Amino acid sequence: MTPTIAEAADRQQAAAPRPTDPRAARSRAAAMQAAQELLAEQGWAAVTHVAVAARSGVGRTTLYRHWPEAAGLIRDAIVDRICNARAVPTGDLHGDLVRGLNGLREVLHDPVSEIGMRAVIDRAGVDPSFAGLKVTLYQEGSLVLREVVEAAKSRGELPADLDTSTAVDELAGPLVFRRLLAGRTFGVSFVRRIVDDFLAAHQVR
Amino acid sequence: MTPTIAEAADRQQAAAPRPTDPRAARSRAAAMQAAQELLAEQGWAAVTHVAVAARSGVGRTTLYRHWPEAAGLIRDAIVDRICNARAVPTGDLHGDLVRGLNGLREVLHDPVSEIGMRAVIDRAGVDPSFAGLKVTLYQEGSLVLREVVEAAKSRGELPADLDTSTAVDELAGPLVFRRLLAGRTFGVSFVRRIVDDFLAAHQVR
Repeated sequence: MTPTIAEAADRQQAAAPRPTDPRAARSRAAAMQAAQELLAEQGWAAVTHVAVAARSGVGRTTLYRHWPEAAGLIRDAIVDRICNARAVPTGDLHGDLVRGLNGLREVLHDPVSEIGMRAVIDRAGVDPSFAGLKVTLYQEGSLVLREVVEAAKSRGELPADLDTSTAVDELAGPLVFRRLLAGRTFGVSFVRRIVDDFLAAHQVR
Repeated sequence: MTPTIAEAADRQQAAAPRPTDPRAARSRAAAMQAAQELLAEQGWAAVTHVAVAARSGVGRTTLYRHWPEAAGLIRDAIVDRICNARAVPTGDLHGDLVRGLNGLREVLHDPVSEIGMRAVIDRAGVDPSFAGLKVTLYQEGSLVLREVVEAAKSRGELPADLDTSTAVDELAGPLVFRRLLAGRTFGVSFVRRIVDDFLAAHQVR
Protein backbone atom coordinates (compact mmCIF):
# COMPACT_ATOMS: atom_id res chain seq x y z
CA MET A 1 0.00 0.00 0.00
CA THR A 2 1.29 3.46 -0.90
CA PRO A 3 1.75 5.62 2.20
CA THR A 4 -0.69 8.55 2.38
CA ILE A 5 0.42 12.10 3.18
CA ALA A 6 -1.06 11.52 6.63
CA GLU A 7 0.94 8.36 7.24
CA ALA A 8 4.11 9.96 5.99
CA ALA A 9 3.59 12.91 8.35
CA ASP A 10 2.89 10.56 11.26
CA ARG A 11 6.02 8.55 10.61
CA GLN A 12 8.06 11.69 10.37
CA GLN A 13 6.68 12.96 13.68
CA ALA A 14 7.22 9.71 15.52
CA ALA A 15 10.33 8.58 13.61
CA ALA A 16 8.70 5.14 13.55
CA PRO A 17 9.94 2.69 10.90
CA ARG A 18 7.60 2.06 7.97
CA PRO A 19 5.75 -1.21 8.61
CA THR A 20 7.38 -3.42 5.98
CA ASP A 21 7.34 -6.65 7.98
CA PRO A 22 4.07 -8.57 7.98
CA ARG A 23 3.56 -8.39 11.75
CA ALA A 24 3.69 -4.57 11.80
CA ALA A 25 1.37 -4.42 8.79
CA ARG A 26 -1.09 -6.74 10.57
CA SER A 27 -0.98 -4.59 13.71
CA ARG A 28 -1.66 -1.48 11.68
CA ALA A 29 -4.59 -3.15 9.87
CA ALA A 30 -6.05 -4.39 13.18
CA ALA A 31 -5.77 -0.91 14.73
CA MET A 32 -7.40 0.71 11.70
CA GLN A 33 -10.26 -1.77 11.67
CA ALA A 34 -10.91 -1.23 15.38
CA ALA A 35 -10.85 2.55 14.89
CA GLN A 36 -13.27 2.27 11.96
CA GLU A 37 -15.68 0.09 13.95
CA LEU A 38 -15.61 2.46 16.94
CA LEU A 39 -16.20 5.43 14.63
CA ALA A 40 -19.20 3.77 12.99
CA GLU A 41 -20.70 2.43 16.24
CA GLN A 42 -20.09 5.24 18.72
CA GLY A 43 -18.77 8.32 16.89
CA TRP A 44 -15.40 10.05 16.91
CA ALA A 45 -15.27 10.66 20.68
CA ALA A 46 -15.07 6.87 21.20
CA VAL A 47 -11.87 6.54 19.14
CA THR A 48 -9.29 6.65 21.95
CA HIS A 49 -5.96 4.83 22.29
CA VAL A 50 -7.41 2.81 25.18
CA ALA A 51 -10.50 1.70 23.24
CA VAL A 52 -8.56 0.89 20.05
CA ALA A 53 -6.01 -1.13 22.07
CA ALA A 54 -8.77 -3.07 23.84
CA ARG A 55 -10.59 -3.92 20.64
CA SER A 56 -7.62 -4.61 18.35
CA GLY A 57 -5.25 -6.32 20.76
CA VAL A 58 -2.48 -3.93 19.62
CA GLY A 59 -0.47 -2.55 22.54
CA ARG A 60 -1.11 1.00 23.64
CA THR A 61 2.60 1.86 23.38
CA THR A 62 2.59 0.84 19.73
CA LEU A 63 -0.53 2.92 19.07
CA TYR A 64 0.96 6.01 20.73
CA ARG A 65 4.18 5.57 18.74
CA HIS A 66 2.35 5.54 15.38
CA TRP A 67 -0.46 7.94 16.31
CA PRO A 68 0.57 10.37 19.06
CA GLU A 69 -2.93 11.92 18.95
CA ALA A 70 -6.39 10.33 18.74
CA ALA A 71 -7.17 12.71 15.86
CA GLY A 72 -4.43 10.93 13.87
CA LEU A 73 -6.11 7.57 14.44
CA ILE A 74 -9.43 8.99 13.20
CA ARG A 75 -7.75 10.65 10.22
CA ASP A 76 -6.00 7.48 9.04
CA ALA A 77 -9.12 5.35 9.62
CA ILE A 78 -11.03 7.64 7.25
CA VAL A 79 -8.17 8.17 4.79
CA ASP A 80 -7.87 4.38 4.42
CA ARG A 81 -11.54 4.23 3.40
CA ILE A 82 -11.10 7.09 0.94
CA CYS A 83 -8.06 5.41 -0.63
CA ASN A 84 -10.03 2.17 -1.04
CA ALA A 85 -12.75 4.04 -2.95
CA ARG A 86 -10.20 5.73 -5.22
CA ALA A 87 -10.42 5.14 -9.00
CA VAL A 88 -7.41 5.16 -11.33
CA PRO A 89 -7.83 7.67 -14.23
CA THR A 90 -7.78 6.18 -17.77
CA GLY A 91 -7.72 9.33 -19.95
CA ASP A 92 -11.44 9.16 -20.84
CA LEU A 93 -12.73 12.44 -19.35
CA HIS A 94 -16.40 11.54 -18.88
CA GLY A 95 -15.67 8.06 -17.53
CA ASP A 96 -12.88 9.31 -15.24
CA LEU A 97 -15.10 12.02 -13.76
CA VAL A 98 -17.96 9.55 -13.18
CA ARG A 99 -15.63 7.01 -11.55
CA GLY A 100 -13.85 9.68 -9.48
CA LEU A 101 -17.09 11.20 -8.22
CA ASN A 102 -18.58 7.77 -7.66
CA GLY A 103 -15.70 7.12 -5.23
CA LEU A 104 -16.81 10.21 -3.30
CA ARG A 105 -20.40 8.96 -3.44
CA GLU A 106 -19.28 5.67 -1.87
CA VAL A 107 -17.34 7.51 0.83
CA LEU A 108 -20.40 9.67 1.62
CA HIS A 109 -22.59 6.57 1.97
CA ASP A 110 -20.06 4.58 4.03
CA PRO A 111 -20.92 4.85 7.76
CA VAL A 112 -17.28 5.14 8.85
CA SER A 113 -16.24 7.95 6.55
CA GLU A 114 -19.60 9.74 6.63
CA ILE A 115 -19.59 9.95 10.44
CA GLY A 116 -15.93 10.94 10.34
CA MET A 117 -16.53 13.68 7.80
CA ARG A 118 -19.43 15.10 9.79
CA ALA A 119 -17.34 15.10 12.97
CA VAL A 120 -14.40 16.72 11.21
CA ILE A 121 -16.56 19.51 9.81
CA ASP A 122 -17.78 20.34 13.31
CA ARG A 123 -14.58 19.83 15.35
CA ALA A 124 -12.21 21.51 12.89
CA GLY A 125 -13.51 24.94 13.94
CA VAL A 126 -12.47 24.53 17.58
CA ASP A 127 -9.77 21.82 17.69
CA PRO A 128 -6.45 22.32 15.83
CA SER A 129 -5.74 18.58 15.49
CA PHE A 130 -9.09 18.15 13.71
CA ALA A 131 -8.33 21.14 11.51
CA GLY A 132 -5.22 19.31 10.24
CA LEU A 133 -7.34 16.20 9.73
CA LYS A 134 -9.80 18.20 7.64
CA VAL A 135 -7.03 19.49 5.37
CA THR A 136 -5.74 15.94 4.85
CA LEU A 137 -9.22 14.63 4.09
CA TYR A 138 -9.88 17.44 1.64
CA GLN A 139 -6.56 16.84 -0.13
CA GLU A 140 -6.97 13.06 -0.21
CA GLY A 141 -10.64 13.25 -1.14
CA SER A 142 -10.17 15.67 -4.04
CA LEU A 143 -6.91 14.20 -5.38
CA VAL A 144 -8.36 12.06 -8.19
CA LEU A 145 -10.78 14.74 -9.41
CA ARG A 146 -7.95 17.25 -9.41
CA GLU A 147 -5.75 14.90 -11.49
CA VAL A 148 -8.54 14.16 -13.98
CA VAL A 149 -9.30 17.88 -14.47
CA GLU A 150 -5.61 18.81 -14.86
CA ALA A 151 -5.05 16.01 -17.38
CA ALA A 152 -8.11 17.07 -19.42
CA LYS A 153 -6.85 20.68 -19.41
CA SER A 154 -3.48 19.56 -20.74
CA ARG A 155 -5.21 17.46 -23.44
CA GLY A 156 -7.30 20.51 -24.43
CA GLU A 157 -10.62 18.87 -23.48
CA LEU A 158 -11.24 21.42 -20.73
CA PRO A 159 -10.32 25.13 -21.03
CA ALA A 160 -6.75 25.87 -19.90
CA ASP A 161 -8.03 28.79 -17.80
CA LEU A 162 -10.54 26.64 -15.88
CA ASP A 163 -9.62 26.93 -12.19
CA THR A 164 -9.07 23.37 -10.94
CA SER A 165 -10.29 24.11 -7.40
CA THR A 166 -13.50 25.62 -8.74
CA ALA A 167 -13.97 22.54 -10.94
CA VAL A 168 -13.59 20.32 -7.85
CA ASP A 169 -16.11 22.51 -5.96
CA GLU A 170 -18.60 22.16 -8.84
CA LEU A 171 -18.15 18.39 -9.07
CA ALA A 172 -17.87 17.37 -5.41
CA GLY A 173 -20.01 20.17 -3.88
CA PRO A 174 -23.42 18.95 -5.08
CA LEU A 175 -22.76 15.41 -3.72
CA VAL A 176 -21.57 16.66 -0.33
CA PHE A 177 -24.47 19.11 -0.10
CA ARG A 178 -27.09 16.49 -0.99
CA ARG A 179 -25.69 13.91 1.43
CA LEU A 180 -24.59 15.99 4.45
CA LEU A 181 -27.06 18.89 4.35
CA ALA A 182 -30.12 17.64 2.50
CA GLY A 183 -29.61 14.26 4.21
CA ARG A 184 -30.48 12.30 1.06
CA THR A 185 -28.97 9.13 -0.35
CA PHE A 186 -28.33 8.78 -4.08
CA GLY A 187 -27.01 6.45 -6.75
CA VAL A 188 -24.68 6.71 -9.70
CA SER A 189 -27.39 8.34 -11.87
CA PHE A 190 -27.09 11.51 -9.75
CA VAL A 191 -23.31 11.35 -10.20
CA ARG A 192 -23.76 11.12 -14.01
CA ARG A 193 -26.19 14.08 -13.98
CA ILE A 194 -23.60 16.26 -12.15
CA VAL A 195 -20.81 15.20 -14.55
CA ASP A 196 -23.02 15.83 -17.62
CA ASP A 197 -23.93 19.33 -16.39
CA PHE A 198 -20.29 20.07 -15.52
CA LEU A 199 -19.19 19.04 -19.03
CA ALA A 200 -22.07 20.97 -20.66
CA ALA A 201 -20.72 24.11 -18.96
CA HIS A 202 -17.01 23.52 -19.59
CA GLN A 203 -16.10 20.88 -22.19
CA VAL A 204 -14.25 22.17 -25.26
CA ARG A 205 -16.01 20.80 -28.34
CA MET B 1 -41.66 39.35 10.75
CA THR B 2 -43.20 36.35 9.01
CA PRO B 3 -43.11 33.28 11.26
CA THR B 4 -40.73 30.58 10.05
CA ILE B 5 -41.73 26.93 9.77
CA ALA B 6 -39.65 26.38 12.89
CA GLU B 7 -41.45 29.06 14.90
CA ALA B 8 -44.82 27.83 13.74
CA ALA B 9 -43.93 24.30 14.86
CA ASP B 10 -42.71 25.58 18.23
CA ARG B 11 -45.88 27.54 18.86
CA GLN B 12 -47.94 24.55 17.96
CA GLN B 13 -45.99 22.37 20.38
CA ALA B 14 -46.14 24.88 23.21
CA ALA B 15 -49.47 26.51 22.33
CA ALA B 16 -47.78 29.83 23.08
CA PRO B 17 -49.40 32.94 21.60
CA ARG B 18 -47.63 34.64 18.71
CA PRO B 19 -45.69 37.64 20.07
CA THR B 20 -47.71 40.54 18.64
CA ASP B 21 -47.23 42.94 21.53
CA PRO B 22 -43.97 44.92 21.60
CA ARG B 23 -42.78 43.53 24.94
CA ALA B 24 -42.99 39.91 23.77
CA ALA B 25 -41.23 40.83 20.51
CA ARG B 26 -38.43 42.55 22.50
CA SER B 27 -38.04 39.46 24.71
CA ARG B 28 -37.81 37.22 21.69
CA ALA B 29 -35.21 39.49 20.05
CA ALA B 30 -33.15 39.60 23.28
CA ALA B 31 -33.23 35.80 23.62
CA MET B 32 -32.21 35.33 19.97
CA GLN B 33 -29.32 37.79 20.29
CA ALA B 34 -28.05 36.06 23.44
CA ALA B 35 -28.30 32.65 21.73
CA GLN B 36 -26.42 33.97 18.69
CA GLU B 37 -23.65 35.44 20.85
CA LEU B 38 -23.27 32.21 22.83
CA LEU B 39 -23.18 30.21 19.61
CA ALA B 40 -20.45 32.41 18.12
CA GLU B 41 -18.38 32.64 21.30
CA GLN B 42 -18.61 29.13 22.76
CA GLY B 43 -20.32 26.81 20.26
CA TRP B 44 -23.69 25.06 20.30
CA ALA B 45 -23.17 23.23 23.62
CA ALA B 46 -23.17 26.62 25.39
CA VAL B 47 -26.67 27.50 24.15
CA THR B 48 -28.73 26.38 27.17
CA HIS B 49 -31.90 27.88 28.67
CA VAL B 50 -29.92 28.90 31.78
CA ALA B 51 -27.18 30.67 29.81
CA VAL B 52 -29.62 32.43 27.45
CA ALA B 53 -31.74 33.59 30.42
CA ALA B 54 -28.67 34.93 32.24
CA ARG B 55 -27.41 36.85 29.24
CA SER B 56 -30.71 38.17 27.86
CA GLY B 57 -32.60 38.92 31.08
CA VAL B 58 -35.55 36.92 29.72
CA GLY B 59 -37.07 34.60 32.34
CA ARG B 60 -36.35 30.89 32.06
CA THR B 61 -40.07 30.05 32.20
CA THR B 62 -40.66 32.23 29.14
CA LEU B 63 -37.77 30.60 27.30
CA TYR B 64 -39.02 27.09 28.06
CA ARG B 65 -42.52 28.06 26.92
CA HIS B 66 -41.31 29.27 23.52
CA TRP B 67 -38.47 26.78 23.07
CA PRO B 68 -39.04 23.53 24.98
CA GLU B 69 -35.65 22.21 23.74
CA ALA B 70 -32.24 23.89 23.47
CA ALA B 71 -32.06 22.64 19.87
CA GLY B 72 -35.04 24.89 19.11
CA LEU B 73 -33.18 27.92 20.48
CA ILE B 74 -30.19 27.10 18.27
CA ARG B 75 -32.40 26.47 15.25
CA ASP B 76 -34.24 29.80 15.51
CA ALA B 77 -31.03 31.73 16.24
CA ILE B 78 -29.62 30.44 12.93
CA VAL B 79 -32.89 30.65 10.98
CA ASP B 80 -33.15 34.36 11.96
CA ARG B 81 -29.72 34.95 10.43
CA ILE B 82 -30.65 33.09 7.27
CA CYS B 83 -33.88 35.12 6.92
CA ASN B 84 -31.93 38.37 7.30
CA ALA B 85 -29.64 37.34 4.44
CA ARG B 86 -32.58 36.43 2.22
CA ALA B 87 -33.00 38.26 -1.10
CA VAL B 88 -36.39 38.94 -2.74
CA PRO B 89 -36.57 37.58 -6.34
CA THR B 90 -37.17 40.19 -9.08
CA GLY B 91 -37.69 37.96 -12.15
CA ASP B 92 -34.19 38.54 -13.57
CA LEU B 93 -32.78 34.99 -13.54
CA HIS B 94 -29.04 35.78 -13.46
CA GLY B 95 -29.44 38.57 -10.89
CA ASP B 96 -31.79 36.56 -8.71
CA LEU B 97 -29.45 33.55 -8.66
CA VAL B 98 -26.45 35.76 -7.80
CA ARG B 99 -28.38 37.53 -5.01
CA GLY B 100 -29.86 34.27 -3.69
CA LEU B 101 -26.50 32.50 -3.62
CA ASN B 102 -24.81 35.58 -2.18
CA GLY B 103 -27.20 35.30 0.77
CA LEU B 104 -25.86 31.75 1.31
CA ARG B 105 -22.30 33.09 0.98
CA GLU B 106 -23.04 35.62 3.75
CA VAL B 107 -24.53 32.90 5.96
CA LEU B 108 -21.45 30.71 5.41
CA HIS B 109 -19.13 33.58 6.40
CA ASP B 110 -21.20 34.67 9.43
CA PRO B 111 -19.71 33.17 12.62
CA VAL B 112 -23.12 32.42 14.17
CA SER B 113 -24.63 30.54 11.28
CA GLU B 114 -21.38 28.92 10.15
CA ILE B 115 -20.73 27.43 13.60
CA GLY B 116 -24.37 26.44 13.82
CA MET B 117 -24.30 24.71 10.44
CA ARG B 118 -21.14 22.79 11.30
CA ALA B 119 -22.66 21.67 14.60
CA VAL B 120 -25.89 20.65 12.97
CA ILE B 121 -24.11 18.56 10.35
CA ASP B 122 -22.32 16.63 13.10
CA ARG B 123 -25.09 16.33 15.72
CA ALA B 124 -27.92 15.52 13.28
CA GLY B 125 -26.55 11.97 12.89
CA VAL B 126 -26.92 11.11 16.58
CA ASP B 127 -29.47 13.53 18.06
CA PRO B 128 -33.09 13.58 16.74
CA SER B 129 -33.73 17.20 17.82
CA PHE B 130 -30.74 18.30 15.74
CA ALA B 131 -32.00 16.21 12.81
CA GLY B 132 -35.20 18.29 12.82
CA LEU B 133 -33.09 21.44 13.01
CA LYS B 134 -31.12 20.33 9.97
CA VAL B 135 -34.27 19.80 7.91
CA THR B 136 -35.52 23.27 8.86
CA LEU B 137 -32.18 24.87 8.00
CA TYR B 138 -32.05 23.07 4.67
CA GLN B 139 -35.62 24.14 3.80
CA GLU B 140 -35.12 27.74 4.93
CA GLY B 141 -31.68 28.00 3.37
CA SER B 142 -32.70 26.68 -0.04
CA LEU B 143 -36.12 28.41 -0.19
CA VAL B 144 -35.10 31.42 -2.31
CA LEU B 145 -33.03 29.37 -4.79
CA ARG B 146 -35.90 26.92 -5.14
CA GLU B 147 -38.34 29.78 -5.88
CA VAL B 148 -36.00 31.40 -8.41
CA VAL B 149 -35.47 28.10 -10.27
CA GLU B 150 -39.19 27.25 -10.28
CA ALA B 151 -40.10 30.73 -11.57
CA ALA B 152 -37.47 30.51 -14.36
CA LYS B 153 -38.83 27.08 -15.35
CA SER B 154 -42.37 28.49 -15.62
CA ARG B 155 -41.06 31.43 -17.69
CA GLY B 156 -39.27 28.96 -19.99
CA GLU B 157 -35.78 30.27 -19.16
CA LEU B 158 -34.76 26.97 -17.59
CA PRO B 159 -35.85 23.56 -18.98
CA ALA B 160 -39.18 22.38 -17.55
CA ASP B 161 -37.65 18.95 -16.83
CA LEU B 162 -34.76 20.38 -14.76
CA ASP B 163 -35.03 18.84 -11.30
CA THR B 164 -35.24 21.73 -8.83
CA SER B 165 -33.43 19.88 -6.02
CA THR B 166 -30.56 19.01 -8.35
CA ALA B 167 -30.38 22.67 -9.41
CA VAL B 168 -30.14 23.69 -5.74
CA ASP B 169 -27.40 21.08 -5.19
CA GLU B 170 -25.44 22.46 -8.17
CA LEU B 171 -25.82 26.07 -7.02
CA ALA B 172 -25.41 25.78 -3.24
CA GLY B 173 -23.12 22.71 -3.14
CA PRO B 174 -19.95 24.37 -4.45
CA LEU B 175 -20.24 27.19 -1.87
CA VAL B 176 -20.86 24.83 1.04
CA PHE B 177 -18.04 22.53 -0.09
CA ARG B 178 -15.52 25.38 -0.48
CA ARG B 179 -16.41 26.95 2.88
CA LEU B 180 -17.03 23.94 5.15
CA LEU B 181 -14.70 21.33 3.64
CA ALA B 182 -11.96 23.22 1.82
CA GLY B 183 -12.07 25.83 4.63
CA ARG B 184 -11.70 28.74 2.23
CA THR B 185 -13.34 32.17 2.27
CA PHE B 186 -14.61 33.73 -0.96
CA GLY B 187 -16.33 36.81 -2.38
CA VAL B 188 -19.15 37.47 -4.80
CA SER B 189 -16.92 36.76 -7.83
CA PHE B 190 -16.92 33.05 -6.89
CA VAL B 191 -20.72 33.23 -6.61
CA ARG B 192 -20.94 34.77 -10.12
CA ARG B 193 -18.65 32.03 -11.50
CA ILE B 194 -20.95 29.29 -10.11
CA VAL B 195 -24.07 31.01 -11.47
CA ASP B 196 -22.46 31.54 -14.90
CA ASP B 197 -21.45 27.86 -15.11
CA PHE B 198 -24.90 26.75 -13.93
CA LEU B 199 -26.57 28.88 -16.63
CA ALA B 200 -24.08 27.70 -19.29
CA ALA B 201 -25.22 24.14 -18.55
CA HIS B 202 -28.97 24.79 -18.27
CA GLN B 203 -30.23 28.11 -19.61
CA VAL B 204 -32.64 27.89 -22.57
CA ARG B 205 -31.44 30.29 -25.27
